[in-house]
Amino acid sequence: MATLGIDLGGTNARAAVVDADGRILAAARAALQDRTPEAVTTTIAQAVRDALALAKVEVRGCGIGVAGQLLGDTGVVAVAPNLGWRNVPFGQMLASALGHPVRVVNDLTAAAWGELIAGAGRGAQDVYVVYVGSGVGSAIICRGEIVRGGSGVAGELGHIKVEPGGRRCGCGEQGCLEAYAGGRNLILQMREALESGQKTSLQELSGGDPARLNPAILERAALAGDMVARRIYDRATEYLALAVANQVTVLNPSRLILGGGVLNNAPAMRDRVRDGVARFSSRTSAAAVRVVQSELGDDSGIIGAALLATRGLPVPGPEATTP
Amino acid sequence: MATLGIDLGGTNARAAVVDADGRILAAARAALQDRTPEAVTTTIAQAVRDALALAKVEVRGCGIGVAGQLLGDTGVVAVAPNLGWRNVPFGQMLASALGHPVRVVNDLTAAAWGELIAGAGRGAQDVYVVYVGSGVGSAIICRGEIVRGGSGVAGELGHIKVEPGGRRCGCGEQGCLEAYAGGRNLILQMREALESGQKTSLQELSGGDPARLNPAILERAALAGDMVARRIYDRATEYLALAVANQVTVLNPSRLILGGGVLNNAPAMRDRVRDGVARFSSRTSAAAVRVVQSELGDDSGIIGAALLATRGLPVPGPEATTP
Repeated sequence: MATLGIDLGGTNARAAVVDADGRILAAARAALQDRTPEAVTTTIAQAVRDALALAKVEVRGCGIGVAGQLLGDTGVVAVAPNLGWRNVPFGQMLASALGHPVRVVNDLTAAAWGELIAGAGRGAQDVYVVYVGSGVGSAIICRGEIVRGGSGVAGELGHIKVEPGGRRCGCGEQGCLEAYAGGRNLILQMREALESGQKTSLQELSGGDPARLNPAILERAALAGDMVARRIYDRATEYLALAVANQVTVLNPSRLILGGGVLNNAPAMRDRVRDGVARFSSRTSAAAVRVVQSELGDDSGIIGAALLATRGLPVPGPEATTP
Repeated sequence: MATLGIDLGGTNARAAVVDADGRILAAARAALQDRTPEAVTTTIAQAVRDALALAKVEVRGCGIGVAGQLLGDTGVVAVAPNLGWRNVPFGQMLASALGHPVRVVNDLTAAAWGELIAGAGRGAQDVYVVYVGSGVGSAIICRGEIVRGGSGVAGELGHIKVEPGGRRCGCGEQGCLEAYAGGRNLILQMREALESGQKTSLQELSGGDPARLNPAILERAALAGDMVARRIYDRATEYLALAVANQVTVLNPSRLILGGGVLNNAPAMRDRVRDGVARFSSRTSAAAVRVVQSELGDDSGIIGAALLATRGLPVPGPEATTP
């Protein structure tokens, strides 16, 4: 039986009809004109109708991945910074608009689940998925189940502290891994270097337009020996590699999946993370893990959301406190 | 129904009859004269007979916790450094001697399970247990199940790298957390300081006898302002606190249990780990976790082994490689 998967980004919503093996049968996209929960609901409903019209198969179940913190399995979006939402009963709103129940899951959970069932995680049971995109996140899969933690936020690799008292992070804390290695912060660090007048090839490489700076440019400059770029790049890469290697030691996954925009567009950084696991993980955990690249790209979230629609996730335990 | 739990240490073996709630009904101890697998088997069999004679209840099932790496659920002890064992089919040997099957589990897994069911973890589902004794170890409990990882060695917190290229660890690698914060290494660092002729109150506090150095003495000297002791103690404590805080961020447990000889005998170190979680864990994970002290002390392992005797553990997945 096919299910419906929805991916809600900061600028677009996509809906897809996905079969039980994680193949996309039909998909539709709609731009978000307005980010109020009401407008987003209307936009998504349109994309869903379009996808269903294209697919021409019976569909049962609907899952949506949202970049943000959720209140357990209530469908309430507690915080979604990209959308500017706080405590939005989005599952309910979308269910009313579509006329059927909707399962709201975290976008990274959805992406990891997509990779597990239909992508780079196929056949594995104990998987660690690390995404480095504009932020840094991870998902832990243990015995084929997503680990959610006591309050549903397990996997926040981006907010481990790598330099206590260090760079301010978007989360408001200091010294988080994401403040050094997340895509948004890589760009921020390049801009800071340019603004402080440091001599660097980043100026030329971006054609003098700071809006064109990106992690791929940073990698190119760093590998070409630009000292300003290297300082930013090496520090980010070392923190990231060590953090991932240490999680491999503690979690002992049989597979490590590396994905996200930064790691996809800065292949040398991905290689260094892979090397870091070989060098820094405990010998037994390093020997047990196969390091692979994510396979589904931008489709992992929509596929995972569809596959989770009817399956369900473990519910946080009795001690769980809401974030 | 009561079960039998066995705790195999480096110098003693203990056997206990434990009821289904984790209460010890009777226990017996025997000193290990000789650490060959054959001699240990004979010693344990005697302790078991003594415990059974004392308990006078029917017993079904037997579990044993061993400090070492096991080959999945085969009962084979792959490596047990304290006993000098490699690839010993200990489960089989003990089963022959006792006349019934024996479940062999890792000692830390057993201790964590004991705390979960009958100690500081009661009522919680997502628990992280950190033991700092002569080594540093941890156990992850997710939705009421022990996380074993792809090859059964999940939880090796002691071997995350906190200082790549740093102090040599007993495991042969460099810069492991255990090389700074494990009890054996705390003592080693004090001895190194004394041997190098550094002026320190550790000399007096140990009565001039290096064999009397221990983590409690280190803490006393450090808190009294001894600079040599402080350097060792502060570094160990900072690495430990940050490592535990970061695992709380990633695992998002509802309860964190701190135990082991070092943390029990150096209460200020335990307090600093607790403070570290408050300061360094992500806000949401810090808010979700209750930090508690282990309750069962040295009995956690024997109780946990008994409780695991009939319950079983998840078996590592199809991708698992043997250590």
